[in-house]
Amino acid sequence: MRLRLPGPTEVPEDIANIGSKPMINHRGAEMAELMEKLSDDLKICFGTNNEVHILTSSGTGGLEAAVVNHISANDEVLVVTIGVFGNRFLQLVEMVGAKPTVLKYDFGQAADVNDVEDALNANPNIRFLVMTHNETSTGTTNYQIEQIAKVAKAKGCLTIVDAVSSLTATPVEVDSWGLDVVVSGSQKGWMMAPGLAFISLSEEAWDVQKTCKTPRFYFDLLKSRESLQKGQTPWTPAVSLFYQLELSLDKLKSEGMDNVIARHATCAEKARNGIKDLGFELLAQKGYESNSVTAIKAPEGLDVSALLKTASEEFDTAFAGGQGSLGGKIFRFGHLGFVTEEDIANGLDVLTKSLESIGFRN
Amino acid sequence: MRLRLPGPTEVPEDIANIGSKPMINHRGAEMAELMEKLSDDLKICFGTNNEVHILTSSGTGGLEAAVVNHISANDEVLVVTIGVFGNRFLQLVEMVGAKPTVLKYDFGQAADVNDVEDALNANPNIRFLVMTHNETSTGTTNYQIEQIAKVAKAKGCLTIVDAVSSLTATPVEVDSWGLDVVVSGSQKGWMMAPGLAFISLSEEAWDVQKTCKTPRFYFDLLKSRESLQKGQTPWTPAVSLFYQLELSLDKLKSEGMDNVIARHATCAEKARNGIKDLGFELLAQKGYESNSVTAIKAPEGLDVSALLKTASEEFDTAFAGGQGSLGGKIFRFGHLGFVTEEDIANGLDVLTKSLESIGFRN
Repeated sequence: MRLRLPGPTEVPEDIANIGSKPMINHRGAEMAELMEKLSDDLKICFGTNNEVHILTSSGTGGLEAAVVNHISANDEVLVVTIGVFGNRFLQLVEMVGAKPTVLKYDFGQAADVNDVEDALNANPNIRFLVMTHNETSTGTTNYQIEQIAKVAKAKGCLTIVDAVSSLTATPVEVDSWGLDVVVSGSQKGWMMAPGLAFISLSEEAWDVQKTCKTPRFYFDLLKSRESLQKGQTPWTPAVSLFYQLELSLDKLKSEGMDNVIARHATCAEKARNGIKDLGFELLAQKGYESNSVTAIKAPEGLDVSALLKTASEEFDTAFAGGQGSLGGKIFRFGHLGFVTEEDIANGLDVLTKSLESIGFRN
Repeated sequence: MRLRLPGPTEVPEDIANIGSKPMINHRGAEMAELMEKLSDDLKICFGTNNEVHILTSSGTGGLEAAVVNHISANDEVLVVTIGVFGNRFLQLVEMVGAKPTVLKYDFGQAADVNDVEDALNANPNIRFLVMTHNETSTGTTNYQIEQIAKVAKAKGCLTIVDAVSSLTATPVEVDSWGLDVVVSGSQKGWMMAPGLAFISLSEEAWDVQKTCKTPRFYFDLLKSRESLQKGQTPWTPAVSLFYQLELSLDKLKSEGMDNVIARHATCAEKARNGIKDLGFELLAQKGYESNSVTAIKAPEGLDVSALLKTASEEFDTAFAGGQGSLGGKIFRFGHLGFVTEEDIANGLDVLTKSLESIGFRN
């Protein structure tokens, strides 16, 4: 099955295979050496000198870690949401008993720095900005994130960013943009299997972490920090995925992060053009289309589930439907991770044939 | 490196390799089919008709799930601890703000049903029994667990059991013993890589789960239950590890759980006998020695770290040291998962040679 999903993405054969290397002692010297290498290489990809920690969990586990380590009950938080994953972040903020102010956009819209500034001006008690960089559910990217983070910083907020599906596909400069907490997930742009989350914390974030009152254990990042000093993780790590990550990072470094991002931009543009040529409209606001995934509006009369079924069963290709209230209203064409222009051409071809097969004409 | 650790354990080549199969759509039909198969097979290994859920986390994540889904702030809980992992369970109970009564045994001692009964009689408000089945840190197994669970049940307690390192190595009969919540971890007896936790819940446990007030998100088992109806997990699962689990369960079924357990018992006995022949004493109370790992007291004059270093560097074999306050006082010989009598003979041989190499004589 070819996966034109916004994750899990296809895994190059050599990365997949390296996961089967013999198991090592996760408290031994080999592991410590591996941890140091992964930690250094992740910093390069994140554009940061901050420590980057690796969690054995999905990206959602990483988002939970970002929240429970920093936000306490009654803290005032600005949550900027442009879709399903922004809403998930909001649920986590609510879970810890914090007081969220919600800046919510329609599906397909991106956040505007002026709105954020207004919201922060209206409530000077807000201490945290929580937002999604790339919204997988709508194929929309908050490209104003740098300006937004700077506004939030100027107001004394800690910025907590979901970069689960943006990192490697879109520029993310943690240090120069001043992003305090940034989360990504292995099954997105990292060309490897699901099961790991990555999270970077600035020194300001660690200061807040130390005094955060929210109970935590598995996702307690102080435990991760103490273990990292010994080249370990606090709990048994998913060692086979650490092997995959090592090779994935080698490949990313060897291609060069700028080139990796440029490849994503080219693939995304090719996908958008092809989709428009087929007569479809995109969900994302112009100028804010995602490099990771393209969300396509289903025109009247298009049965999305029939389309996905046909693409899968007749043409061995998985596209994604809409999540939550977007179910049946959109479909999504993923182009992140191990993706080439040829994959895009192939995906467009499958789409064309599947539409023919179900007898839909735009 | 040969791993004579109590996890991560060695992974058979075919199980390791199957993890590199191409990625699939985690929301598609193939995944649903796989989920159903894994779910059915796990039930066989757990000896239960209860649903068994798979979490992408280490075993500790599974323990957190067991606690945060059932125990609320101010709940009265009896925590039975015989070592490091029992103490970890206690920390989780404390994290949710519950009121623990702690029944604590010296390292190497196992829990006694009479003590549990006394503790429950002394405090009729206790609603939960939390305990470790096999204590990896001391090589001691709570073989009275069935009687203890029955006493707890008769007092109206929900029983929450850490079977992370006992399942597949020691009989665990979830249904006939009346264990409400039971946790295991993939890197222990399951002959596969780390990164998954398994958890079974009785209907009584689900009833408590529904009213439990502890905030939870990533480990919210109700979300797992709802997703399982659709053959899914709530968050992206570690798909490559699910592939490994499928083959691991096939192998366990084909060997037969009784035979798997008998193999562990034979290997454990052989290890104990060999260790005693070398003049060492075991940490575990007689009759409560673990099938998963043997903990060996370090006699005066034995430098445990030198021993482990020599075994690792000269003989390519990893044994484990003592955890926490047991550091330097014991070393541990793991024999669970993919283990044969030949592995035990080999481990004993390495131990003999390593002791010679560091010039230690009993």
